[in-house]
Amino acid sequence: MPATSTPRPRRLHLNAFLMNAGHHDAAWRHPRTQPERVTDLRYFQHLAQTAERGKLDSIFFADGLALWGKVKHNALGGFEPLTLLSALATVTERIGLIATVSTTFNEPFHTARKFASLDHLSGGRAGWNIVTSGTADEARNFGQDEHLEHSLRYDRAREFLEVATKLWDSWEDDAILLDRTRGIYVDDEKVRPIDHWGEHFVVQGPLNVPRSPQGYPLLVQAGSSEDGKEFAAQYAEAVFTAQQSLADGQSFYKDVKNRLPRHGRSEDDLKILPGICPVIGSTEAEARALEQELTDLQVPEYGLAQLSGMLGTDLTGLPLDGPLPELPEERDINGNKSRFTLVAELARRDGLTLRELIARLGGGRGHRVFAGTPDQIADQLEEWFTQGAADGFNVMPPHLPGGLEDFVDHVVPILQDRGLFRTEYTGRTLREHYGLPRPEGRLAPSATAAEGQPA
Amino acid sequence: MPATSTPRPRRLHLNAFLMNAGHHDAAWRHPRTQPERVTDLRYFQHLAQTAERGKLDSIFFADGLALWGKVKHNALGGFEPLTLLSALATVTERIGLIATVSTTFNEPFHTARKFASLDHLSGGRAGWNIVTSGTADEARNFGQDEHLEHSLRYDRAREFLEVATKLWDSWEDDAILLDRTRGIYVDDEKVRPIDHWGEHFVVQGPLNVPRSPQGYPLLVQAGSSEDGKEFAAQYAEAVFTAQQSLADGQSFYKDVKNRLPRHGRSEDDLKILPGICPVIGSTEAEARALEQELTDLQVPEYGLAQLSGMLGTDLTGLPLDGPLPELPEERDINGNKSRFTLVAELARRDGLTLRELIARLGGGRGHRVFAGTPDQIADQLEEWFTQGAADGFNVMPPHLPGGLEDFVDHVVPILQDRGLFRTEYTGRTLREHYGLPRPEGRLAPSATAAEGQPA
Ligand SMILES: Cc1cc2nc3c(=O)[nH]c(=O)nc-3n(C[C@H](O)[C@H](O)[C@H](O)COP(=O)(O)O)c2cc1C
Ligand SMILES: Cc1cc2nc3c(=O)[nH]c(=O)nc-3n(C[C@H](O)[C@H](O)[C@H](O)COP(=O)(O)O)c2cc1C
Repeated sequence: MPATSTPRPRRLHLNAFLMNAGHHDAAWRHPRTQPERVTDLRYFQHLAQTAERGKLDSIFFADGLALWGKVKHNALGGFEPLTLLSALATVTERIGLIATVSTTFNEPFHTARKFASLDHLSGGRAGWNIVTSGTADEARNFGQDEHLEHSLRYDRAREFLEVATKLWDSWEDDAILLDRTRGIYVDDEKVRPIDHWGEHFVVQGPLNVPRSPQGYPLLVQAGSSEDGKEFAAQYAEAVFTAQQSLADGQSFYKDVKNRLPRHGRSEDDLKILPGICPVIGSTEAEARALEQELTDLQVPEYGLAQLSGMLGTDLTGLPLDGPLPELPEERDINGNKSRFTLVAELARRDGLTLRELIARLGGGRGHRVFAGTPDQIADQLEEWFTQGAADGFNVMPPHLPGGLEDFVDHVVPILQDRGLFRTEYTGRTLREHYGLPRPEGRLAPSATAAEGQPA
Repeated sequence: MPATSTPRPRRLHLNAFLMNAGHHDAAWRHPRTQPERVTDLRYFQHLAQTAERGKLDSIFFADGLALWGKVKHNALGGFEPLTLLSALATVTERIGLIATVSTTFNEPFHTARKFASLDHLSGGRAGWNIVTSGTADEARNFGQDEHLEHSLRYDRAREFLEVATKLWDSWEDDAILLDRTRGIYVDDEKVRPIDHWGEHFVVQGPLNVPRSPQGYPLLVQAGSSEDGKEFAAQYAEAVFTAQQSLADGQSFYKDVKNRLPRHGRSEDDLKILPGICPVIGSTEAEARALEQELTDLQVPEYGLAQLSGMLGTDLTGLPLDGPLPELPEERDINGNKSRFTLVAELARRDGLTLRELIARLGGGRGHRVFAGTPDQIADQLEEWFTQGAADGFNVMPPHLPGGLEDFVDHVVPILQDRGLFRTEYTGRTLREHYGLPRPEGRLAPSATAAEGQPA
């Protein structure tokens, strides 16, 4: 890769994490939301176009493969994110499109192919949030009784990525000749089987889609456990993470960046995007009042069920105004390890009752919630960005569409005025927005060599 | 379902089967095609909008899960069809969107969910062409050495459909209460686990997407073997089939329709759509000349490779102007049984050399090819439709976009003038276009009953 000739000022990156009526668990009950539209494409179209109007780097849809007890008290659309993002690709021009797909319950061939398709369809705007999934309810929709053990999930994830990248690289960039005269569409020396034979997967290849505009989708990762961070350092180009305080954010940032050289990568190869749930008001009092309104709309049973899941501990029936019971250790958690630890520490540090903890988690499920004016929010982002805690942010509006509109209309212009954020898209692809290079194709050794039997 | 009060004249149905530069295997070499656009969304957008301009019932994308030797001599986009159709959902209003998904290499939970998503996104326009896949190359992309045996594939397909329909029915139509005041989004008595415990699948459910506009996608099937026809009679609402002559078409039509009562279904519950590859000219001579041009552009190695696959017999090196070698019996074919028989009989009946057979299969891979004027084509369609061979047609333009434009601009108006085809969409959903009822939800017994341990 040629080095950039003139250094550009460091700019922060913004991803809009979109979900149902908003990230606050009571958002759907608030008059500023439209929960009747969570299965309406035009609703998501409006959200995507709003984020694009704000010149954001990307939008993101999370995913889970089971309903859990969630739905009784929370509006849920439940669209499969790749399907939804493909639909949004045609009504947007520039913004990146990131979808969660779990490596635990999918096949690398399908996943590689779908992201290659989305990358073509969107002109190079696809991103993959690689997750290992965290619940037994998901396993039970795929013929398994219990969820695969945490470290085995990451083993499988690593091999999954190895196969997927081989498949994306199974076509050279210049494989298509399109020689009508001679009747040769593809130079078949440049499209080769991958012949992967591993512990979890046996895949012949090649992929049945030509190499896509970005080579492959932007690889995003969102697990913050020890295994998660190591996986991120090896593969991820962007990391979503929940961090409660600047100090936590700084130490996570340093930790992950320090792991990169061991994998032959540099600091700039991976962008760290902590989550922020911005509760925006034109005055601080108004912001706080909105936050309180949302808290007042919470359904305690729902909060308790969510919390039971995060803590791997059944909390039903415990007094809301009492303290947390004894909790297990992180090593005994087989779900989301890092979230367990974050929540347990938050409760311990601030001495919270169950009710208080449910209120604190309502906005962002462990992500940082900040209520204030657009200027105060911009100050927070700037602080984290300049103090070594973030390369950008995963913006999680507490209520939609209003919370996103407010962010785009009131916070983004301040960031732009301060020279911290782009005023126009300069690139075309998602990787270009994040300032990341297009990966070179690394085609497997030629077919003849690969097919040869070991002597 | 209330019976319709005034009987409407019987109208035929039209599906546009879209593929790369067209169905003819040499289409991409013809000046009327645009093979450089087969990975360009706008190309498919134009095709979909053209079909919609013609008021067609639906568009359809086939799918295969391996590259085969195909690509050297044929332009291939290779988009995953659900991703592609989701993208097209936003740029069309009425036309149905049918995608192939294989039951052999997928999980029912994912498949049910994706189609539910597409059905929501498109306002009730999703259709699923259920296939069992036919090649060992596909198996080798999913950790299997050989392709699952034909009848086992259909066993798996049946159970797959059972699980998928249970998942689609796991939400009652009126499950969503959206009661903001009480904080109740869903009546959880109306969303229930399916607790499927079968030979191929164990799936807890419920689905994590609300019941979709059509209840579930239109179920299409395209296998014409004995097992395939039986599967169609049990589940399918539309059948794609390759039939060479009116007599073959009539006997297939009768055969499949006669199987319906045994599954408690009536003739009208299933629409039979034979394939037709219309080579259109403003005179008969012009049509024949176009057909010849396409034949002259065929690459014999490609035709021979395709034919080897269809016949389960390696033909490489055989003289093109000689006869076919001895062929296996249908029972020894583990791929596409019905296509094997069709091709073998065609060659035998007409005493074709390899070269002649390759030419005959070039346009439609075994589907009927008819070259003529728009009037002659309309006559053919009318004959099959009125003589008990078809409820409509799977239109397979030999070259794209021109072959579809010609059909829409010149054949459709004749069919409309004859009162055989709609002049405007009257329905909103794909099922409405095909005159099929929305399936009633058949929710599993209540959760308490289902969860009870056997005594
Ligand atoms: C912003 C963000 C988004 C996430 N999205 C998903 C998701 O869509 N699906 C999922 O199963 N897990 C999701 N997770 C969870 C993680 O990806 C990961 O599976 C979990 O943290 C467990 O990993 P760990 O034990 O390494 O922390 C998300 C986490 C974060 C911080
Ligand atoms: C119009 C048409 C479209 C088809 N599309 C596909 C397809 O997309 N993918 C596939 O694997 N098979 C496809 N097939 C093949 C059949 O669905 C089926 O798998 C094959 O015919 C084998 O079934 P049989 O042995 O019962 O005939 C198609 C067949 C027809 C007639």
